[in-house]
Amino acid sequence: MYGTDGCLVECSSVPCATPENDTKDTSTTINLDHGDPTMYESYWRKMENKCDITFNGDDSLSYFANGKSLCWFLESKLEEQIKRLHNVVGNAIVDDHYTIVGTGSSQLMQAALYALSPIDQLEPINVVSATPFYSAYPEVTDFVRSGLHKWAGDARTYEKKGVYIEFITSPNNPDGVIREPVVNGDQGKLIYDLAYYWPQYTAITSPANHNVMLFTISKCTGHAGSRIGWALVKDKEVARKMTKFMEISTIGVSKEAQLRAAKILEVISERCLDPNMENFFEYSQSLMTDRWQRLRQVVMANGLFFLQKYPLEYCLFTKDFCESHPAFAWLICKGGEEEDCEKLLKEHKIHTRSGRRFGSDSRSVRISMLSRDEDFNIFLQRLMAIQGPTNGN
Amino acid sequence: MYGTDGCLVECSSVPCATPENDTKDTSTTINLDHGDPTMYESYWRKMENKCDITFNGDDSLSYFANGKSLCWFLESKLEEQIKRLHNVVGNAIVDDHYTIVGTGSSQLMQAALYALSPIDQLEPINVVSATPFYSAYPEVTDFVRSGLHKWAGDARTYEKKGVYIEFITSPNNPDGVIREPVVNGDQGKLIYDLAYYWPQYTAITSPANHNVMLFTISKCTGHAGSRIGWALVKDKEVARKMTKFMEISTIGVSKEAQLRAAKILEVISERCLDPNMENFFEYSQSLMTDRWQRLRQVVMANGLFFLQKYPLEYCLFTKDFCESHPAFAWLICKGGEEEDCEKLLKEHKIHTRSGRRFGSDSRSVRISMLSRDEDFNIFLQRLMAIQGPTNGN
Repeated sequence: MYGTDGCLVECSSVPCATPENDTKDTSTTINLDHGDPTMYESYWRKMENKCDITFNGDDSLSYFANGKSLCWFLESKLEEQIKRLHNVVGNAIVDDHYTIVGTGSSQLMQAALYALSPIDQLEPINVVSATPFYSAYPEVTDFVRSGLHKWAGDARTYEKKGVYIEFITSPNNPDGVIREPVVNGDQGKLIYDLAYYWPQYTAITSPANHNVMLFTISKCTGHAGSRIGWALVKDKEVARKMTKFMEISTIGVSKEAQLRAAKILEVISERCLDPNMENFFEYSQSLMTDRWQRLRQVVMANGLFFLQKYPLEYCLFTKDFCESHPAFAWLICKGGEEEDCEKLLKEHKIHTRSGRRFGSDSRSVRISMLSRDEDFNIFLQRLMAIQGPTNGN
Repeated sequence: MYGTDGCLVECSSVPCATPENDTKDTSTTINLDHGDPTMYESYWRKMENKCDITFNGDDSLSYFANGKSLCWFLESKLEEQIKRLHNVVGNAIVDDHYTIVGTGSSQLMQAALYALSPIDQLEPINVVSATPFYSAYPEVTDFVRSGLHKWAGDARTYEKKGVYIEFITSPNNPDGVIREPVVNGDQGKLIYDLAYYWPQYTAITSPANHNVMLFTISKCTGHAGSRIGWALVKDKEVARKMTKFMEISTIGVSKEAQLRAAKILEVISERCLDPNMENFFEYSQSLMTDRWQRLRQVVMANGLFFLQKYPLEYCLFTKDFCESHPAFAWLICKGGEEEDCEKLLKEHKIHTRSGRRFGSDSRSVRISMLSRDEDFNIFLQRLMAIQGPTNGN
């Protein structure tokens, strides 16, 4: 999900196409730097008016929601549909967790850092994640130079004693790999970023059951413009502190966005439970499977790049073996260490995000697999057309 | 507007009534601690379906908005309606300003602090506001222990050399007074918090024209649950940095909330321009005038308290002289310095916010004037019933 963030900073300063201003002529750069999930529009368009939601002028004036939740601004309808969907999909345990809603899960990452940082220490707590890590973690941790927490880089090489926070993104952004904590410490506070743990991307092998788990509607259903994320949190004090962060930061989360998200999740659950209806996850999985197959064919034919491979796993949701089809392709130039894959692709009018941004090197890039069909097709054409010194190897 | 924030922290730990769980029996504490603007529901209910807005399943999936604004996530419809309303009301110059949308104006305060803090200094910049100041400023400035900025208290006693940031809230929260900057320094960076500079609260005496001005729909139209605020910013670099803050913090602002806000503002402007229609500001002003008259009568009859007085000013919008009718009453106990006004009122089941929270003393409290009629009437009854040693003086 988080693919978008950092990128946007870059986008505003480079002449690249966004989905809105791309005229689709061959001279326009295709923007696959961020993970804008417009691929999902086709499914939602087919739903016609089944997901419609109307707001009257006098709806939702209050800061408060109607529920009795610890998270006082959480709409009870949204909480109910979040829990229902996790139960339907089987990707997370919800029953012994508090639900905290956020303005996207970026805000919840900050809320989790705030809640997990010790307040009685002079030095900020170290925050780590294994490379390649989601490119926004360093920025989100350090952008206001917090005295509570500071970015400490690659979790694989982290060996300091004492408390630390580790982000575990699984499936991982950027490379789609299933992950476990890597720091070998006994005082770690773990934040599981499970934005991509949905059946269209990966096999659901067991319900996740961690102390702090983050999800977002952006990469689950594609409704990134709504800015709705949620955290499932076991410890009451952590949940309370995260709620407090949200309160100071934005006095809660838009009611319109919450209620619309509840409606979208409700429609997904209903259609998952009815075998006669088109299931969102199966539809999306088939789109992703098709895109990955076509990408692998092009990469193989072209011969210039490596693509991450994934094992077959049994998915408890689809009740079938399946390979991962991540939201991003992690593409690595076959050339030597001096290769700059982002630069190479940009010369061919494909805007991607360099591996350097993920704590990796310039041979690799992250490429969004979630664009509209039109953009994806142009991407493949341009990738196919690239000729390099190693072409055909 | 911001009356809500800090309060909610308190509310979650005290057994006080929120608008949703208040059963209205006389044993329930009335919560006037925060400025939940439910008073406005009556106007919007009368609008019936004129403000309806419907979202389809495939609307607004993208992170990006359709506009060409520097603020890439700002919906162009909202920008248009914000500018139109300011032009209709005459309370702010918009033409040479960039518009930045925020998740409420709390987030924009943080964005403004981020954008105005020097990045080349070892020490955080001092942030001040004249007492009584909005109670959330210290918390918003310091909650993540930023190394960029730190709260430095009352602007009236601030005498340090060098750069500083001053919040100027006008009309002021909590006391409704019209304000100017008070620090006598030449290196001040000023943030004008104009949440209450609307005709229902105060006379519009001239269009505000400052470098950084903050507004919010919460206290303009009452739609606090939408979490929509906006900043009007003259300097392009400041606007760009504020946008960057929003990007890292929440990757933009809910599209549903923005589009609904645009609809609400559109209806207000249209009805202001049509003399045959009921004008939102005149309707709200008459409600506020009535409430303030009744409160002043009770305070006079009771004899225990002082209430802030306001001068008559000519309002360019209503084309008439009018007194201020602030969103909060700033009530001061007539007793000595040992008086605790918040405690006294709480014993009479009126939950308010102590003057201490605003950098003032415990003789004063802030009381929301924006509750539903039912709560306001109970408040007056309870206030009338208070007997004290100075009663009748």
